[in-house]
Amino acid sequence: MSVAGQVFVLSGPPGAGKSTLGKRLRQRFADLAYSVSLTTREPRPGEVHGVDYVFVSREEFLAKVASGEMLEHVEVFGNLYGTSAAAIRQSIDGGRDLLLEIEVNGGLAVKRAFPQAVMIFLLPPSPAELEARLRGRGTEDEPKIRGRLERVAYELAQARHYTHLVVNDDLERAVEEVATLLTAERLRLERRWPLVAPAWGL
Amino acid sequence: MSVAGQVFVLSGPPGAGKSTLGKRLRQRFADLAYSVSLTTREPRPGEVHGVDYVFVSREEFLAKVASGEMLEHVEVFGNLYGTSAAAIRQSIDGGRDLLLEIEVNGGLAVKRAFPQAVMIFLLPPSPAELEARLRGRGTEDEPKIRGRLERVAYELAQARHYTHLVVNDDLERAVEEVATLLTAERLRLERRWPLVAPAWGL
Repeated sequence: MSVAGQVFVLSGPPGAGKSTLGKRLRQRFADLAYSVSLTTREPRPGEVHGVDYVFVSREEFLAKVASGEMLEHVEVFGNLYGTSAAAIRQSIDGGRDLLLEIEVNGGLAVKRAFPQAVMIFLLPPSPAELEARLRGRGTEDEPKIRGRLERVAYELAQARHYTHLVVNDDLERAVEEVATLLTAERLRLERRWPLVAPAWGL
Repeated sequence: MSVAGQVFVLSGPPGAGKSTLGKRLRQRFADLAYSVSLTTREPRPGEVHGVDYVFVSREEFLAKVASGEMLEHVEVFGNLYGTSAAAIRQSIDGGRDLLLEIEVNGGLAVKRAFPQAVMIFLLPPSPAELEARLRGRGTEDEPKIRGRLERVAYELAQARHYTHLVVNDDLERAVEEVATLLTAERLRLERRWPLVAPAWGL
């Protein structure tokens, strides 16, 4: 039996850079699993089904909720988002580390189900920079942007439930810092012991 | 009030390379505190009072034990070794991280007093390599070396009380790995939050 992998949750306000950071980490840690979230929202330009999200209809989504397959689901601006608990368990039981880029309510639901998870809160350098990043996307209209900004205060208040904090003012440094957290977990005694014990006749 | 620093315990069998690794880490993390252990044994060639150990007489040592100043003390081959709890508390309460290179019984005593400590077990690559390193020191006679080797089985059995495991088969990699653990602690939310909260009006 392999040693279980760890769950890494990467949350933060929209515009913090979760997706960019997640992509970089998956490039760097080729064995890193990630659970693709399900959503009922329309794909943004360039988003790929099964890579960025699994895009499903509202009916499909609610059927999965009813069957108990969804660990959590939230509705934001009329769209459903959710995470499959089975997919998480399958990854970590197989000994793989799993990185979840997920908004704060989803992240907290993951923590309830997997209390040992490394909970990383990603913060943009300043409120002004966050607003600039949201507007810079150019994919959302003014009311949606204002709605997202109002939500930031709530999201920041949830940071205290996280275990680690990374400020994304310099992408390279932020990547290094999250990589440090991934590597540190791999140095845990219960992960390393099975690899070295045979050499010591243990 | 500053956020408390963390206690890092670096233990392992003699010959694992605790001292060499500790020196390298103190060079790299200039703000790292270290509590110098007290001992009643004779200095080895090159060892400096107040740097490698505080060398004291048996009478002085026992007086400190009686006054409650010593967190722990052990007797190995007729020599007393011990750690001052007050020195540890002073460092971490002042916001500094503290690295303790300490044998396993001492390490476990530190863990009892500071349960949050990051407990790093340092292992040589193999039993044969450990024996070669002990003999290569040339500072101890055969009965002492045999005594140390017999003790290794006991020390390895204590590894399960540690949180992390680093194998010192390549010094540069071992330094990197322990540095990773130090850096990861500095990314903890409670350490980082006070640094970033003002920018967010929190």
